[in-house]
Amino acid sequence: MPELLPRARNSSESIFSQMSRLALQYGAVNLGQGFPSDPPPAVLLDAARGALGRWDQYAPPAGLPILRDAIGADLGLDGADVVVTSGATEALNVLALSLYGPGDEVLMLEPVFDVYLPQARLSGATPVTVPMHLDDVAGWTLDMDALRAAVTPNTRALLLNSPFNPTGTVFSPVECAELVALARAHDLWIISDEVYDELYFGEQPTSFRTLAPERTFTVGSAGKRLEATGWRVGWIACPPGLAPMLSAIRQNGSFCAPTPFQVAVAAALPVARESGFYADLRAGYGERMGLLASGLRELGATVFLPSGTYFLTARHPQWTAEVLVKEAGVAVIPGAAFYAQHVAPEGLLRVAFCKSRSEIERALERLSLHAAHAPA
Amino acid sequence: MPELLPRARNSSESIFSQMSRLALQYGAVNLGQGFPSDPPPAVLLDAARGALGRWDQYAPPAGLPILRDAIGADLGLDGADVVVTSGATEALNVLALSLYGPGDEVLMLEPVFDVYLPQARLSGATPVTVPMHLDDVAGWTLDMDALRAAVTPNTRALLLNSPFNPTGTVFSPVECAELVALARAHDLWIISDEVYDELYFGEQPTSFRTLAPERTFTVGSAGKRLEATGWRVGWIACPPGLAPMLSAIRQNGSFCAPTPFQVAVAAALPVARESGFYADLRAGYGERMGLLASGLRELGATVFLPSGTYFLTARHPQWTAEVLVKEAGVAVIPGAAFYAQHVAPEGLLRVAFCKSRSEIERALERLSLHAAHAPA
Repeated sequence: MPELLPRARNSSESIFSQMSRLALQYGAVNLGQGFPSDPPPAVLLDAARGALGRWDQYAPPAGLPILRDAIGADLGLDGADVVVTSGATEALNVLALSLYGPGDEVLMLEPVFDVYLPQARLSGATPVTVPMHLDDVAGWTLDMDALRAAVTPNTRALLLNSPFNPTGTVFSPVECAELVALARAHDLWIISDEVYDELYFGEQPTSFRTLAPERTFTVGSAGKRLEATGWRVGWIACPPGLAPMLSAIRQNGSFCAPTPFQVAVAAALPVARESGFYADLRAGYGERMGLLASGLRELGATVFLPSGTYFLTARHPQWTAEVLVKEAGVAVIPGAAFYAQHVAPEGLLRVAFCKSRSEIERALERLSLHAAHAPA
Repeated sequence: MPELLPRARNSSESIFSQMSRLALQYGAVNLGQGFPSDPPPAVLLDAARGALGRWDQYAPPAGLPILRDAIGADLGLDGADVVVTSGATEALNVLALSLYGPGDEVLMLEPVFDVYLPQARLSGATPVTVPMHLDDVAGWTLDMDALRAAVTPNTRALLLNSPFNPTGTVFSPVECAELVALARAHDLWIISDEVYDELYFGEQPTSFRTLAPERTFTVGSAGKRLEATGWRVGWIACPPGLAPMLSAIRQNGSFCAPTPFQVAVAAALPVARESGFYADLRAGYGERMGLLASGLRELGATVFLPSGTYFLTARHPQWTAEVLVKEAGVAVIPGAAFYAQHVAPEGLLRVAFCKSRSEIERALERLSLHAAHAPA
């Protein structure tokens, strides 16, 4: 028999799918994979129900014009500069294929969201990561000098994520300006993964596009914004004029995003903006973050509060994700899963709070019971 | 500013999207892109409506177990050997990434479905095409000798499509046996694009998997089968044991197929099979094929009746797709769009009959009017 290529033989199940599978297997409360327990808002569900039976066939690969315009209106750019994708993961893959290839390097920060590395490698490029600093008191900080030092003549792009999964970092306006200056100095593309753009707990995050529209591709996600991660509607906001070429590359992947859900997202985006849906979401998640963080601290964990995303990171001298899912009945993501080129901070865990209050309470009870029975 | 990679700069809009756009622009009857005018069946729509608000979050990248099992049951294999994708286009892309790369050749027939070539190139491999013969009397025929002669030591896979878009060919059992013998002799993978497996007008097509399960990947499409091309649910039926690796590659694309539609397709597949839905579909499309073919023949076209798919090919000395969409108000696909390495038969057109009777009648009227006004 012939063999699969090495890139297929060496691929493995994502840590998120793996932990969700283990959560199911061990009956664990799932604070691992980042999907909400709440259903999507009624405006989105109603619009989808109305689209079924009427909008069921292929959409243009770049997206339905009504959706491109709705995204453009929301972000403040022309709909013609938007490419709709089957989720943000595909958006990132289209960018990897379009912006770098063999011989190129792409610079990113570590801990690194899991698809960034294999997508860069599938494009033929070399991912280069620079570690974030973690300090028990100061939390996560960006090391601009290390980032500057990692740029080589082969660097083509800077892949950033703010709000940052898993650290929860939101880059300050000063950091954003420094990152843009670095990209301009070396003529790098900026790929700005902003899927958590509406999930922040302090200052509103700076969108890199506003600082460097000529070189920034912004990745967004209706699934994250509207609590429907399984609907597969994401987008790329492109520098002017580049959308047609990206959309031509994109049609070789999933061809187009699901048409009925494109119609529904186009209807829901302006309503979500005007009705204060995102502010309510932040308020709700802010409360659950507080509940989870104080519960974890009471159990002896060091918690690093996020400025954005619906995850927090924490360390506990006795905990590992593997043991917690099997013995405590609580699924979280091991921090080591976000590290490939540097050593993960000892005992680091990512814990999701996009879950119901009762799930978070149950998880804390289970962790407490587990602590009571663990050897001292 | 940095530049996009050549692979992005040289990509262009698919001919199908392009003709659909022109159809809209010129108010043309769209017999171009292959999507049906009829809505999906009620069983599918009802199941999707029921899934919304309950199944809205990420599915595993390989697909929901209920859907993998439903596809397995329909095709006669284990659900564990099925990978669910965001449409058949993504299925083909996952296979291109998994089965061949730089230095490899993939053998396919011309006319060639449009994504096969760019997907092979994006994987790093070289597509090699062998032309089908077209004769005004005998129609389309496969040249096995030419295919055998095109195999080199670098050939890794045979990419086949039966029923064949755009020729409508269904390979005979003898041809299928010869194709499998060729693959075995040179240890090639078989990628069998069978998205039209239920759309045939004579003998039921042979599925390559039944002849060579050890080396055949079968690509299927719920969109084609259940008249919902915009829902983006496709699949790969894999040789035993290979699904996990393909699913790991697949998670770098769209991560997972739309969850609510996976639930709906899982519910609809057994009902479609048991209720005779596919037989009704064939009967309905068979009638419309007859209507279209006789109308085109009356207008002086040479029509090549398909044994499967919902397309026919035709030639007419005075027609080109570019002129028809603008001047006659009828969109069809130019045959030349399916040719890259060989010369397309003069005047070849692909015409879809997955449209309503009234659309087909209107298209024929317009073509007749156009013929009456055309210079002799």
